[in-house]
Amino acid sequence: MLKDFVRTERMTEKERRAKIREERDHLFSSQMKIKDAKLPVMVIFEGWNTAGKGEIIGKVIRNIDPRFFKVATMDRQPSEEEKRYPFLYRFIKEIPETGKFRFFDTCWMEEVVDGVIEGTLSEEDYKKRVHSVNILERQLCDNGYLVIKFFFHISKKEQKKRLEKLSGSKDTKWRVDKEDLFQNKNYDRFLDLYERYLDDTNASRTPWYIIDAEDKKTAELQVLSFLNQGIDIALTNQKMNVPILQNTFPMQKLPKLSEIPLDDKVLTEEEYDAKLDSLQKELKDLGNKIYRKKIPVIIAYEGWDAAGKGGNIKRITEALDPRDYVVEPIASPEPHEKARHYLWRFWTRLPKTGHITIFDRTWYGRVMVERLEGFCSENDWQRAYNEINEFEKELSDWGAVIIKFWVQIDKDTQLERFNDRQNTPEKQWKITDEDWRNREKWDLYETAIDEMIEKTSTAFAPWHVLESVDKKYARIKALKIVIEEIKKRL
Amino acid sequence: MLKDFVRTERMTEKERRAKIREERDHLFSSQMKIKDAKLPVMVIFEGWNTAGKGEIIGKVIRNIDPRFFKVATMDRQPSEEEKRYPFLYRFIKEIPETGKFRFFDTCWMEEVVDGVIEGTLSEEDYKKRVHSVNILERQLCDNGYLVIKFFFHISKKEQKKRLEKLSGSKDTKWRVDKEDLFQNKNYDRFLDLYERYLDDTNASRTPWYIIDAEDKKTAELQVLSFLNQGIDIALTNQKMNVPILQNTFPMQKLPKLSEIPLDDKVLTEEEYDAKLDSLQKELKDLGNKIYRKKIPVIIAYEGWDAAGKGGNIKRITEALDPRDYVVEPIASPEPHEKARHYLWRFWTRLPKTGHITIFDRTWYGRVMVERLEGFCSENDWQRAYNEINEFEKELSDWGAVIIKFWVQIDKDTQLERFNDRQNTPEKQWKITDEDWRNREKWDLYETAIDEMIEKTSTAFAPWHVLESVDKKYARIKALKIVIEEIKKRL
Repeated sequence: MLKDFVRTERMTEKERRAKIREERDHLFSSQMKIKDAKLPVMVIFEGWNTAGKGEIIGKVIRNIDPRFFKVATMDRQPSEEEKRYPFLYRFIKEIPETGKFRFFDTCWMEEVVDGVIEGTLSEEDYKKRVHSVNILERQLCDNGYLVIKFFFHISKKEQKKRLEKLSGSKDTKWRVDKEDLFQNKNYDRFLDLYERYLDDTNASRTPWYIIDAEDKKTAELQVLSFLNQGIDIALTNQKMNVPILQNTFPMQKLPKLSEIPLDDKVLTEEEYDAKLDSLQKELKDLGNKIYRKKIPVIIAYEGWDAAGKGGNIKRITEALDPRDYVVEPIASPEPHEKARHYLWRFWTRLPKTGHITIFDRTWYGRVMVERLEGFCSENDWQRAYNEINEFEKELSDWGAVIIKFWVQIDKDTQLERFNDRQNTPEKQWKITDEDWRNREKWDLYETAIDEMIEKTSTAFAPWHVLESVDKKYARIKALKIVIEEIKKRL
Repeated sequence: MLKDFVRTERMTEKERRAKIREERDHLFSSQMKIKDAKLPVMVIFEGWNTAGKGEIIGKVIRNIDPRFFKVATMDRQPSEEEKRYPFLYRFIKEIPETGKFRFFDTCWMEEVVDGVIEGTLSEEDYKKRVHSVNILERQLCDNGYLVIKFFFHISKKEQKKRLEKLSGSKDTKWRVDKEDLFQNKNYDRFLDLYERYLDDTNASRTPWYIIDAEDKKTAELQVLSFLNQGIDIALTNQKMNVPILQNTFPMQKLPKLSEIPLDDKVLTEEEYDAKLDSLQKELKDLGNKIYRKKIPVIIAYEGWDAAGKGGNIKRITEALDPRDYVVEPIASPEPHEKARHYLWRFWTRLPKTGHITIFDRTWYGRVMVERLEGFCSENDWQRAYNEINEFEKELSDWGAVIIKFWVQIDKDTQLERFNDRQNTPEKQWKITDEDWRNREKWDLYETAIDEMIEKTSTAFAPWHVLESVDKKYARIKALKIVIEEIKKRL
């Protein structure tokens, strides 16, 4: 699309000025509508070096109240720290919240294209990255984001002229770096790659808009009018439902909760003590190994209230070096978390390589409590199975070990433990009215959990059920699984 | 996606039967909703030979009143006649109208995959076809269609078993043909190609659903539930606005109508007679050549009322063999045309190779009268420039010569001609109240036409303005352009 691109501009200077004024006013009046509609607007500026992205961003934001936007200036390459997270992590951290603009001064495109140019990304890596980008852009759209992508286009000649002009003055000389000169020298190679990348990521709901950046006034007008057009359309499409994609990940079959025997899953105190000790020792060693080998580990706990998640987690962490792991207790989302894609608060809590994050409750809230309490729409939670599998596949491809536990007890055992908590003063803080209310919905939850386990037990991130009527049994089983899964990856 | 596909089916037979009953009732009750919402539903069945597509279609339609659906059974390869039209022509002819279902028993996928297998489609051809398919599927969605795509999947072993069973009985032996055996023998090659095709055409709004067709009851349930789910979502998304894609075709710059001088474009009677005669002779020869060389030619006329389109067209057709051309006068769409994608009535009027179709008014009605009279939404006509360019690009890539004329006069000339028509009894049929009403909107039309010419004058299908204050001049110019454009292609 870049190579054929020819601007047809028939405006007079006067017409253009009038049009720019009109578009600026339009954008100004859109900001309150965006706020009211809770629309998050992500505007991505990509393109040639010296094409004037920063300058146009500067002009565009002059029409928006500073409370309603932020500019994310992304480095072309991740820092050493950021390299220890998945490719998309540093960008996802910056996505806007509902009702606000976020302007990206370059985004994920640069890292991919530079990687190919420098030879650090193979053909296969390139395809994987493009795949990840397409999934993320689709997920953002599906979850109500407006994503607008601009490519600032200038010719080789124009770029050269600009670089020479910048180099020619001692006040601007510093703005020209080796990368700029390299890009101009290798303009045609970059052009091929940009063209390919644009083609590969040009989806119907997140299309590319090519900005003719040779003339800055035209560039500003084009950006403003595509932006306004996109906002107007997005504002009419709130509450839209989205096709539910089929879950085509390789799946593992697990039994329904009601089919899982619990009573025979018991350990004596002696068996427990002996096994706990030796397993914790083994896990300690493995913890050191994954630290040295820089393998990230994600352990996700879900289970019935009072099933024994806390004590189970404790037996894992006891074996680990406190510098290497973190436990993330997940409660209802904070306002700033609720205002973003529902996976955002988990993306931002990922371990870096060599570290372990244990989630005490997880992203599966989407298809359990959020589903049952109506905190999201039916379309939202139905879509979530596939979105979650995509999320976990991304982490698995990054190299993470993903271990998902469902801590299982029966309804009677829960009642016993609830009563015990209620009647034991030092345990009373552990039981709330909400626990009792949730208990009333046991059957609805069970249906939801069965569906969740069926639809998200993938080959790369299967569920493991921990039978926890005897908590000792569950703890030993959890340790064994963690050890086994880590060993597979070493 | 095919290669990883693993079914996770945990239902008992009883549960499945209950679920099928539920989905059948759901579909039954959807048919009236679809009618009321004027939703056109296109359901595409693709997949392995003997996978049972036809049988499942038979089961699905039992839940729908015969007035609300048709089944389009497509041959895997086009007939000799159909080969003389663009690749997508035979499929587009069959798209459903609003409020109705159309089930496709195989669709464009087969022709593409078979072409690659047989070596008649090169890698480049394959990519072009996939590109065409993606554009069409997107255009259908953007214009309010629900498009659901099923791939019926069975293993090599299962296919072999079925073929052997069919061959084994003399009642069913005829159902097994050479192609079936060939496919089973070359299962892995087909699998690679299907996998690639599915990946290449798996868009977020027209995703693929893989049907596990080893077990027919499961297949029926899956089809019904994906179909119902898709319908429910589509019904909530009526009146949706669609992102306006950027027009990135190579464009040609033309002046605005008001900048085109008209008065000096005059011919004397003698000049006209001499030129007309020689040009018509030349065109006659070219007409024969394009017939023999099987080149399709599309001539599109637009222009002001009373600009002289009719007489202009006559001077072209006089030179042609009546067996080789057809003039299509385009009035407001008939109900059955209005009920389909707005380009459908033009797709179905295309010339076959070696023939000429002259459109007296065209698909550009979308961005002129439909825009100005509010016959379509703003989102519809804004999207149409790019959709029309895509349509013409498809025709141009097919090999068609596309010639677009704007017949231009000034407002005073129109008034003169209107008065002449009004005051001359034998011309009175040519003038209606509508003509006078349109004339009142001259300025609005001029703005729309300028925008149309700017946005649809592509390198492969540019506009030609015929200055027609002197009709003789316009006729000679039209003949010259038709000759020139045909010559370029010979």
